[in-house]
Amino acid sequence: MEGKRIMKTNILYQHGTLALLVPGLLTGTITMKELLQHGDTGIGTGEGLDGELIILDGIPYQADSLGNVKVVKDDFIMPFANANFADFKFLTTLKDATPAKFATVALQEKENANTFFAVQVKGIFSYVKTRAVVKSFPPFDTLEATAQKQSIFEAHNIEGTLISYYSPSLFHGAAVAGFHNHFLAADHSIGGHVLDFKIASGKLSRQLFDTLEQHLPITNKEFMDHNFAKDNIADVISKAE
Amino acid sequence: MEGKRIMKTNILYQHGTLALLVPGLLTGTITMKELLQHGDTGIGTGEGLDGELIILDGIPYQADSLGNVKVVKDDFIMPFANANFADFKFLTTLKDATPAKFATVALQEKENANTFFAVQVKGIFSYVKTRAVVKSFPPFDTLEATAQKQSIFEAHNIEGTLISYYSPSLFHGAAVAGFHNHFLAADHSIGGHVLDFKIASGKLSRQLFDTLEQHLPITNKEFMDHNFAKDNIADVISKAE
Repeated sequence: MEGKRIMKTNILYQHGTLALLVPGLLTGTITMKELLQHGDTGIGTGEGLDGELIILDGIPYQADSLGNVKVVKDDFIMPFANANFADFKFLTTLKDATPAKFATVALQEKENANTFFAVQVKGIFSYVKTRAVVKSFPPFDTLEATAQKQSIFEAHNIEGTLISYYSPSLFHGAAVAGFHNHFLAADHSIGGHVLDFKIASGKLSRQLFDTLEQHLPITNKEFMDHNFAKDNIADVISKAE
Repeated sequence: MEGKRIMKTNILYQHGTLALLVPGLLTGTITMKELLQHGDTGIGTGEGLDGELIILDGIPYQADSLGNVKVVKDDFIMPFANANFADFKFLTTLKDATPAKFATVALQEKENANTFFAVQVKGIFSYVKTRAVVKSFPPFDTLEATAQKQSIFEAHNIEGTLISYYSPSLFHGAAVAGFHNHFLAADHSIGGHVLDFKIASGKLSRQLFDTLEQHLPITNKEFMDHNFAKDNIADVISKAE
């Protein structure tokens, strides 16, 4: 993790995999300071699924299960996160757009994509529904059990930013196939993992990656020793994410 | 692909995926010059499955379907390749070792591993059986059809080097789950993708990676437009590789 910060905008950095959350490998294995070496934009979750993270302009925000949004410190640790150095290209302004419309535009009318990309929507959301999980402590339960302890938040006519990462279906398991969306309101009144939304009017921009930099927590003995063969990874991720 | 060569030994670089070979996306999308920016050790195949590649000490060799081994040029292009900067750690000397024994030692008695690693065996092989595919030309056929046009080579009591890349089962499709082995004889009399082997006496060394740098050919329209949903990727790779 040491060394010179190289701000390559063609790289999507991923620490951990969604697969390792499934059996409850929820130990934090990267610090926020380390993650920020790999991007100024991102999403993630804290140790024990401690809230939902969104990084905007280099500032890491956490939406917790009580509905609080705060900036996390350098030593905040995470089992899973994505980051990139923002180089979004404006595509279009969306009006009265559902998640389906958002997907169609972000995919540029294709059914799916074969590479990773990020999408940013900045504007007014007529509706947004988010969730944030209650932090759990060791011994950790499975993702399914832990994710049941989640709070749901809703807001109407709110200004904010949606950050979405798209992963090709080939990488389902490492990531979630399709879009993975997090949101933060401009006034920080609501944030989290997005369950539903409607865009009143928002600028959609996109950043295509040619490289996935997949980092694995190989110094974590629990991860290295785990046998994933008995975990129903693909189905659990599809349901939970 | 420009810029300073950064010789990080914790990274496994992969250009393309095995998945894209399945429907016959066999166009070369990286040059050898570019690949060598990412490692001095590696494996791969040429455009149209033009032979089997092994890179040792920065020199890229191709074993072709006629049984010739030659050094390829900087402008040689490939649809798929792996590379790393060698930093192998000696583990043990194997004697009279089958592929099963090799796997047990390389996996350090575990059933499987959750990260990527490379294995090098240098020594005398009492037996080695390799294959190299006949180069095909556009329009390319599927991997299954193309791989049927392969030559099989055998040698006994031969000195050489085996390079193997291990991928966790989570990444089956992008790579092949388990070991992917290529071989080159010291006298260059035989080389290729390894189908079977027995080690008479060989030094086994291993290099663990914490990062997969997965590069995708996003400027290749055929790749970007392909719908992989109808390709039986996991099964075809298990059979062909």
